[in-house]
Amino acid sequence: MDMQKVNSMDFGEFVDVFGNVIERCPLIAAAVWSQRPFSDLEDLERHFFEFIDTLPRSGQEGILRCHPDLAGRDLQRGTLTAESQREQSGAGLTTLSGDERRRLSELNARYRARFGFSFVLAVRLSDRAAVPGELARRLHQQPEHELRTALGEVKKIGHLRLLDLLGSEPARLGP
Amino acid sequence: MDMQKVNSMDFGEFVDVFGNVIERCPLIAAAVWSQRPFSDLEDLERHFFEFIDTLPRSGQEGILRCHPDLAGRDLQRGTLTAESQREQSGAGLTTLSGDERRRLSELNARYRARFGFSFVLAVRLSDRAAVPGELARRLHQQPEHELRTALGEVKKIGHLRLLDLLGSEPARLGP
Repeated sequence: MDMQKVNSMDFGEFVDVFGNVIERCPLIAAAVWSQRPFSDLEDLERHFFEFIDTLPRSGQEGILRCHPDLAGRDLQRGTLTAESQREQSGAGLTTLSGDERRRLSELNARYRARFGFSFVLAVRLSDRAAVPGELARRLHQQPEHELRTALGEVKKIGHLRLLDLLGSEPARLGP
Repeated sequence: MDMQKVNSMDFGEFVDVFGNVIERCPLIAAAVWSQRPFSDLEDLERHFFEFIDTLPRSGQEGILRCHPDLAGRDLQRGTLTAESQREQSGAGLTTLSGDERRRLSELNARYRARFGFSFVLAVRLSDRAAVPGELARRLHQQPEHELRTALGEVKKIGHLRLLDLLGSEPARLGP
């Protein structure tokens, strides 16, 4: 898809296509449409990220709270978004053993209790073996620092999803 | 549901329950959770509305763009949210004649082309007979004025949805 096509979309089409660049936050894509025309992928992406950066802290935390846990309830129930399902599956998180799932579930619960939002990680740049260690490491960060780290992961996920949609270069799947 | 119950919810439960108070904008409920505890329905509602009011204009337009057209594509396809389905059905918008539907569709398209967002109306305070006239009237408003009118309708819808959920007094269905 080229930018000419993107710039010609009405907001309904635009939200259909880009509504989940930021997980479960179609409001953000719907807001970004106001900034068209976009010169290229970087320009489009910059508007997504600027919107996130200018939200009040509660809104930034809200974005994180809209993300599903890794290997969590939505995966068990089959209620992940298509993008999240692909990403978690690609990282091997859909085929954990019972013990691995319980360990992640316990770490996720501790993380949510400490920070008041979900643990977000761009798992396409990671894998199932690395996730528990990364979660345990971030559990010990200071809340301000962890909020910035988590929003950085939201942006990495968004970047990869935009690459998938615009397809100008292959999305890198390795670290 | 009383406020003690609401204040005891973790953010996952809170977003499950209140995620569609603002249509297709769970981010807003997820942000409002940061402001707990809430003293009563008015207090909870105030946080939803304040979040809307402090968004940049693109974000406010984004909220409107997340709303479905009345008697539009989502209704035809069966992809309305449960709340919107009930509201449009209650107003008689699910049983329009072909002519009525075409007339609304044409007005909706003109409205979207003029303002760059969807026509939003709290149809529980209206009915199928009044909708086309109200749409035609608002089509002639100035964009700044119409943005404020439309956000006022978003808040009326949110108020009625909160009343439904908290059930302390019956939601008024008449004007």
